Amino acid sequence: MARIDGHSWTPGEARKQFRSGVTGPTAGLAPGHTQANLISVPADWAYDMLLFCQRNPKPCPVLDVTDAGSWSTPLAPDADLRTDLPRYRVWEHGELIDEPTDVVAHWRDDLVSFLLGCSFTFEWALSEAGVPMRHVEQGRNVPMYVTDRLCRTAGRLHGPMVVSMRPVPPEHLDTAISHSALMPAMHGGPVHSGDPAQLGIHDLGRPDFGDPVDVEPGDVPVFWACGVTPQAAVTASRPPFAITHAPGQMFITDARDEQYRVA
Amino acid sequence: MARIDGHSWTPGEARKQFRSGVTGPTAGLAPGHTQANLISVPADWAYDMLLFCQRNPKPCPVLDVTDAGSWSTPLAPDADLRTDLPRYRVWEHGELIDEPTDVVAHWRDDLVSFLLGCSFTFEWALSEAGVPMRHVEQGRNVPMYVTDRLCRTAGRLHGPMVVSMRPVPPEHLDTAISHSALMPAMHGGPVHSGDPAQLGIHDLGRPDFGDPVDVEPGDVPVFWACGVTPQAAVTASRPPFAITHAPGQMFITDARDEQYRVA
Repeated sequence: MARIDGHSWTPGEARKQFRSGVTGPTAGLAPGHTQANLISVPADWAYDMLLFCQRNPKPCPVLDVTDAGSWSTPLAPDADLRTDLPRYRVWEHGELIDEPTDVVAHWRDDLVSFLLGCSFTFEWALSEAGVPMRHVEQGRNVPMYVTDRLCRTAGRLHGPMVVSMRPVPPEHLDTAISHSALMPAMHGGPVHSGDPAQLGIHDLGRPDFGDPVDVEPGDVPVFWACGVTPQAAVTASRPPFAITHAPGQMFITDARDEQYRVA
Repeated sequence: MARIDGHSWTPGEARKQFRSGVTGPTAGLAPGHTQANLISVPADWAYDMLLFCQRNPKPCPVLDVTDAGSWSTPLAPDADLRTDLPRYRVWEHGELIDEPTDVVAHWRDDLVSFLLGCSFTFEWALSEAGVPMRHVEQGRNVPMYVTDRLCRTAGRLHGPMVVSMRPVPPEHLDTAISHSALMPAMHGGPVHSGDPAQLGIHDLGRPDFGDPVDVEPGDVPVFWACGVTPQAAVTASRPPFAITHAPGQMFITDARDEQYRVA
């Protein structure tokens, strides 16, 4: 997938581009600004989803929840959640039925939208601390994998945890762990580092979402809980309707990463 | 209020005492174990309450939410939420109707219970770091105040933020702030330190809940968001029914404080 040359974009400029139809992964865009996962479900499913997030805070840290039908959020007051992401996924009964660049035609008045923290947010803190970001260097989407770890069930919602993976040189491992741990709203510290088989992942070269990333000699694969987890729950639990972002193609907010660092 | 001599109790021993009718504030009990606020509401109000907590994470950090009707929690698998707190408050249409030592007679099959983090949990971290805990030294309940800061509304729930206050010697102020900030699930860092009038508090000697605490010369009043906030929301929003803990008389869990420290 072609890399967007948007490293100098403001969040508002990025959203304007996406609104006009530009697509692609958002890692590395609008530096210093918080990116978010999107999951919109009918109001009848909103309690289950909010409880699912509360019970699974590592993959699903909630940044904001809209009122039913609303497409706006205080995280970016001039944004329209129906148009301002690069690409969406539309789901019916757990099946992917469309991947449009806006969801105006799919919108419903009973949709409650959840914005969840994203690991792209702590990538800046890691980069500044000297940790290389291989997928950004290589111009690729981050690789994501469905694990064999089950989330805690909440009402009708259940499913496996999804993780993102970044290869980290061993001398940077402590820094990667400690700096991400200070951002619990962005998935916090990793859930695992080292052997992928411990998470039920058998081939790092074949991610379930995103792109495979070239690993440098000695790099340790480090796995963070991922905000694509609700999409795995949609697939497993089959709610009648849902809208999500496309993996790696996030909502860019006006919020600053720094405000989510706890110390 | 008489001080309980329970500094050497395990969480299970403390709950057994409370189950048998012992009451009193729980600050300083079962050292190193996480204490929690309780708010139980009918299932019809559970989404509003969970959303209220999500939108007001400083006063209302959610540790666990039960399924409707259940009185058990993984935070203390052998506990009974109806009997194992020192004292409860029972509310109808926003009015306090009873303050019993158990709520077996008041229980309903549609009650969803929320356990919220409590600042008593980080008191251990502060004490270990050398910060004096005046209310513990003086054998009193922590003083709590209703502020003029409004919480973000969630559905039918609205109300002011409640804070707890600890007088901190100036040389310990940075430590108190930084150590509590590392426990966002226990209200995190203070919302204010210094002039109480900035929060609309006019007389520290007359707390809305708990006991006044003697301030040593030079001490700075430091205010943390407080898990009594949902009780203020119950008063303001008048749900048909609710059960809460009595302020300062918390649910003592088996969880360890350390597991909630982010780094």
